[in-house]
Amino acid sequence: MVKQERAARTRRALIQAAAEVFAEEGFVHASLSTISKRAGVSNGALHFHFANKRMLAEAVEAEAAETLRRITEVAWASQSNSLQRVVDATHELMGILAQDIVVRSGFELAADIARRTESPLRRQWQHWVEDALRRAERSGTLAEGVSWMDGAGVIVAATTGFEVLGGSDASWLSRQNITRFWEILLPRLADRQGLEALMCAGSRPPTAAL
Amino acid sequence: MVKQERAARTRRALIQAAAEVFAEEGFVHASLSTISKRAGVSNGALHFHFANKRMLAEAVEAEAAETLRRITEVAWASQSNSLQRVVDATHELMGILAQDIVVRSGFELAADIARRTESPLRRQWQHWVEDALRRAERSGTLAEGVSWMDGAGVIVAATTGFEVLGGSDASWLSRQNITRFWEILLPRLADRQGLEALMCAGSRPPTAAL
Repeated sequence: MVKQERAARTRRALIQAAAEVFAEEGFVHASLSTISKRAGVSNGALHFHFANKRMLAEAVEAEAAETLRRITEVAWASQSNSLQRVVDATHELMGILAQDIVVRSGFELAADIARRTESPLRRQWQHWVEDALRRAERSGTLAEGVSWMDGAGVIVAATTGFEVLGGSDASWLSRQNITRFWEILLPRLADRQGLEALMCAGSRPPTAAL
Repeated sequence: MVKQERAARTRRALIQAAAEVFAEEGFVHASLSTISKRAGVSNGALHFHFANKRMLAEAVEAEAAETLRRITEVAWASQSNSLQRVVDATHELMGILAQDIVVRSGFELAADIARRTESPLRRQWQHWVEDALRRAERSGTLAEGVSWMDGAGVIVAATTGFEVLGGSDASWLSRQNITRFWEILLPRLADRQGLEALMCAGSRPPTAAL
């Protein structure tokens, strides 16, 4: 039991260290010995958990995907209004991107590992936003003349931009910046009746860790 | 004279081939021999023009920067309304990103070569958009309660998103998609009087090559 706990802790430390080294040096340049040193474990321990660098990258992506899943799940559960759910999830995701190197690295890895393929993290986010907007349209809360596809397209493009630009300048990810974005966009997406109830700064206080 | 022309043609072929190979394999994996083969020149000819791979990458970035400069210059000259200039330049840039591998590669290279630094191409675009929005604010054509910074932030984030997402799915860069984006955003950015005169699909027919 103690042994299992230790193994799980080592695995987590390796994923964290890998995310840091991938983010700093890129997947191609990152060396396994740098990663094991950073994690404070031996090369042998690294190889016990991960056969190669690609499997480490997949573990980083999987953990980031799980965090993203939790963010959207929490946003979904706490609100009955689909647009507010998207606003809340956006704040949460941008905050996590600024703080959590595993999520940041997970989003960046796709372009690195296999070029010209879509990032699975971005894809997961896009699908969730599209689904939320589809539900907003169905419940009649979208503004006249705006389809779920239009709304989702602008939201996905802008949040991808925040994610990418936030990699070199974290102010893009600030709550203030995301709030201002929603203050500009929401009056075009939400129907007038629903607009007043929507909170551009999010309906919940930021959670430091999920 | 003939010799100079031939040298210029070889240089252009090398930049084009380098952009293709960087986009396909990434900067780190790209080999100089693949690039010279693709350009149809000898390794010696490549080394006559470019001392190393980094100088080739800088030449790709410089040519992309020059194309971007021309796009914004043309948009600037043809319109007196700053917001319309930005709409026009956005259509032009997205069209070029879909067609011109040198521009596409120029935008992508920064993340590849030196992680955590800003892309000079994205920076150049951001500065131009900010300048245009500042002028729009000064001439009183922005909507009430919207500052040039707010407007520029949303435009830069969304267009960066289109650029990145368009790398794996070109439909993000389509004129139709960009037009829809402006149809949603412009009513929030432009003052009511000016809005009717603005053309979301751009004020000029697309130019295939600049």
